[in-house]
Amino acid sequence: MYIAMNRFKIAPGSEGDFIEIWKNRDTFLDTVAGFKEFNLLQGPTTEEHTLFASHSIWESKSDFENWTKSEAFRKAHANAGGAKKNIYLGPPQFEGFESVV
Amino acid sequence: MYIAMNRFKIAPGSEGDFIEIWKNRDTFLDTVAGFKEFNLLQGPTTEEHTLFASHSIWESKSDFENWTKSEAFRKAHANAGGAKKNIYLGPPQFEGFESVV
Repeated sequence: MYIAMNRFKIAPGSEGDFIEIWKNRDTFLDTVAGFKEFNLLQGPTTEEHTLFASHSIWESKSDFENWTKSEAFRKAHANAGGAKKNIYLGPPQFEGFESVV
Repeated sequence: MYIAMNRFKIAPGSEGDFIEIWKNRDTFLDTVAGFKEFNLLQGPTTEEHTLFASHSIWESKSDFENWTKSEAFRKAHANAGGAKKNIYLGPPQFEGFESVV
């Protein structure tokens, strides 16, 4: 199992706007080989930001990497970051994880 | 769905020791109400450390919080951090996430 996470620091008060962006986003993931599940996760809030993470579960790292090179990936990210840029405190931080136990 | 993660920074070269600790650990999770799945995840390696995360999936945040107050939790953590302290670069960092999309 492989988990791909992108961590987003969102300006306090903009949490609802960020969630709306993801609710209205078409990820085109359902037909992708090796894809298992997607969730948008809301994490801790500090004085500076609220942490969110996109969280997708894959059969394997190679399934995820193949998706990043696909037309489905290009379509899913065609409009990413276009609107409401002021809600993001810095760029997203990618972390990929292999299940080892 | 609620995801509880503890992030561990492990000294380079000690990844195998850290994984062995978790392989031999009894988490007593299987009978806990609301528990769905546990994985130990290995993330990116930098010059300073390798990131690991314990990753557990729960029906709800309250199921997770009830577990942290339980006898099963106490037993699972009775020996945590006891051995091989030098492999840890700082304390673990807890992050809890609610699924919002």
